[in-house]
Amino acid sequence: MSAVAPETTTTGLREGAFGNAVALSCRECGHRIDLGPHYACPECFGPLEVAYDFPAVTREEIEAGPRNIWRYKALLPVPTDIEQSPNTEPGFTRLLKADNLARELGIDTLWVKDDSTNPTNSFKDRVVACALSAARELGATVFACPSTGNLANAVAAAGARAGIKTVVFIPSNLEQPKQVNSAIFTSNLVAVDGNYDDVNKLAQEIAAEEDGWAFVNVNVRPFYAEGSKTLGFEIAEQLGWRLPDQVVIPVASGSQLTKVDKAFQELIKLGLVEEKPYKIYGAQATGCNPVATAFKAGVDAIRPVKPDTIAKSLAIGNPADGIYVLDSARRSGGAVEEVTDDEIREAIVLLARTEGIFTETAGGTTTAVLKKLVETGQLDPTLETVIINTGHGLKTLDAVSGAVGPAATIAPSYDAFAETGIGQA
Amino acid sequence: MSAVAPETTTTGLREGAFGNAVALSCRECGHRIDLGPHYACPECFGPLEVAYDFPAVTREEIEAGPRNIWRYKALLPVPTDIEQSPNTEPGFTRLLKADNLARELGIDTLWVKDDSTNPTNSFKDRVVACALSAARELGATVFACPSTGNLANAVAAAGARAGIKTVVFIPSNLEQPKQVNSAIFTSNLVAVDGNYDDVNKLAQEIAAEEDGWAFVNVNVRPFYAEGSKTLGFEIAEQLGWRLPDQVVIPVASGSQLTKVDKAFQELIKLGLVEEKPYKIYGAQATGCNPVATAFKAGVDAIRPVKPDTIAKSLAIGNPADGIYVLDSARRSGGAVEEVTDDEIREAIVLLARTEGIFTETAGGTTTAVLKKLVETGQLDPTLETVIINTGHGLKTLDAVSGAVGPAATIAPSYDAFAETGIGQA
Ligand SMILES: Cc1ncc(COP(=O)(O)O)c(C=O)c1O
Ligand SMILES: Cc1ncc(COP(=O)(O)O)c(C=O)c1O
Ligand SMILES: [Zn+2]
Ligand SMILES: [Zn+2]
Repeated sequence: MSAVAPETTTTGLREGAFGNAVALSCRECGHRIDLGPHYACPECFGPLEVAYDFPAVTREEIEAGPRNIWRYKALLPVPTDIEQSPNTEPGFTRLLKADNLARELGIDTLWVKDDSTNPTNSFKDRVVACALSAARELGATVFACPSTGNLANAVAAAGARAGIKTVVFIPSNLEQPKQVNSAIFTSNLVAVDGNYDDVNKLAQEIAAEEDGWAFVNVNVRPFYAEGSKTLGFEIAEQLGWRLPDQVVIPVASGSQLTKVDKAFQELIKLGLVEEKPYKIYGAQATGCNPVATAFKAGVDAIRPVKPDTIAKSLAIGNPADGIYVLDSARRSGGAVEEVTDDEIREAIVLLARTEGIFTETAGGTTTAVLKKLVETGQLDPTLETVIINTGHGLKTLDAVSGAVGPAATIAPSYDAFAETGIGQA
Repeated sequence: MSAVAPETTTTGLREGAFGNAVALSCRECGHRIDLGPHYACPECFGPLEVAYDFPAVTREEIEAGPRNIWRYKALLPVPTDIEQSPNTEPGFTRLLKADNLARELGIDTLWVKDDSTNPTNSFKDRVVACALSAARELGATVFACPSTGNLANAVAAAGARAGIKTVVFIPSNLEQPKQVNSAIFTSNLVAVDGNYDDVNKLAQEIAAEEDGWAFVNVNVRPFYAEGSKTLGFEIAEQLGWRLPDQVVIPVASGSQLTKVDKAFQELIKLGLVEEKPYKIYGAQATGCNPVATAFKAGVDAIRPVKPDTIAKSLAIGNPADGIYVLDSARRSGGAVEEVTDDEIREAIVLLARTEGIFTETAGGTTTAVLKKLVETGQLDPTLETVIINTGHGLKTLDAVSGAVGPAATIAPSYDAFAETGIGQA
């Protein structure tokens, strides 16, 4: 596999290019290598993750930072001057108390972390901002990704703002809004006849063949993945520097869930929150349920599936971090659950009608799984719970456009309105 | 005209229901009446606006507030406990330095205030949050609006979260994403065969006939309109408590533009920013240009038009606050300019490709007008300029879906990709 930019070796990096990060370490064998465009362990081919040597970090320092993910820059693999480089300034999205939905589901205290209001309307803006920093520091000339849709949007937008060439690869059957929402930013949107796993394989081939390409979720994946920690940091800070008891997170590759767990652990280690037990729950669609299946079977190995679900953003049949999701769920006392496409559609409407949040199919999956977890007694409704809404309903309109619409179409007169009966009761 | 809730007279209001607001005052004759569900002067039928008796307000107090519009609650007609009432928590959106777009247009310093990341993806969440507070304090039982689309989204979402019945009226030819993005939140979306001005007339009839209805932009319009001031407050705070030299704002009814001007004036009066001259520019589509036409003709009267433009959110042919837009533009040394639908489409792509922001047709209008103002020498490119992006491109996909799309559709193989030539240069 070729490096992102072979002329830029680790020794060519500027001082502090990755902030407090000190190495890439193997999740499987613990082997450490220098920071660089690597994602697989040279010893055992296990996935690499970023390791840090954190200084003391205080709540006050964080609170004095910008109102976006860079307030946590000391805990990310980014330079201290990261705010100065053009980026989409994602994060610090709303944490909404969801009393109506809580009442509907019989939960005492429920919050929705709403990432649908990020710059390109999904949590992917967070991970892409970290990947962009790595790409820049490594001297990459092309910023690229294989994507189930949201990642393509985020890469194309961030690349446009940063002035770097972008190439984004998507399954050709992707929802039209997600296609336009990438093509608007880049002239290099490539539709691939195949599912996400095919697109991902193609990206790995290209990464191996071409020089200077930073594939955000392939060869700079360790840096990219760290961005999801900011979801965990923000939840804790917005709760008043405190961890929730339970959190429900959608699972595609499983990266986000794993990193929210990591974020909570780091906050505890740094003394930024009090140590306490918390449970991590994963949400999948029945049409793409490899991790939920393994969880229920009580096995460690994840058997790939061929996805067939309206939750296209979660349609990764062969999830790279699936085994770590199992680990987080089992270690914390949580679970990984699945729901049908009909349950997903109903949950999209439920979240909208109760909390005024229009989520995409991924958020429908998460909300429906929350409901199912309560109904099946897997989640304690008396404990404080957070669900993460990771994307926007405007990107998956077709999932609900058959279910909702105008109650009436009338002539512009009071009598015509009165006849509808809508004014009554 | 009937009151919002006849049983709730002004004397029935709780103490502090409208914060530091003390009266409604007529923009035309200065006549003052008590705060309540009124929008027309009983003396001269002129529009009413909220008048205040402000206490001393400091930057520190504001900065210690929540990261949404309620940080400015002392300057809005809302109670001091407004954060406790369920609302969508809008505002404090990104102010992005737009160096790429600035370079493209030959401007020295340019910022984009990006309201496309508000809860329902337009600036309307701000005004609706203020209208919701008024509706609540006045004891309204129905929360309603006539809308060109975005307002319907915001009213339906805010009402769902607040647990109040919503009824929203839209022109039946409205873009499908805006229809779904309302219907997802409310079962009472009413499509009206007619244009916005017809829908607005119908709403006025219903407001006159029914009791207990708060039409956000009709009978609680004075409270509603104040919400747009927060755009001006945020721009100033995010610039480091300083006013820009020039600001470009889209114009439909003209309310937003008028209120940003009012916000700047209030900040000066309160000593929160230094006094300085600034110019206010309005942006319209040629297909709905009543204010631009009057500006260019140098006349005070606005002649209504029949709208025909892709900028449907700006398609108000008979703008209620048009004359005050003329006044702001003329008094400040700004202008009101117009652009064609083709210029709007091109500007949507330009903003996306330079800054990674996907705007709707309204933001395309604003961006295109900025370009035209520079080209025609009406705006000084050496002065610090802010444009307001008021809405999201996902709501007006059709405007650009013909212009952008995948560069290629390929088989999932490296060879197929290499053949496209996209990897080259
Ligand atoms: C909206 C949305 N939610 C959740 C996910 C899951 O992310 P991960 O791959 O980190 O599990 C994705 C991934 O594409 C997504 O687009
Ligand atoms: C996106 C957008 N921008 C701007 C406006 C103009 O607002 P105003 O009526 O305050 O002029 C509207 C009004 O509907 C809108 O939807
Ligand atoms: Zn290893
Ligand atoms: Zn009057």
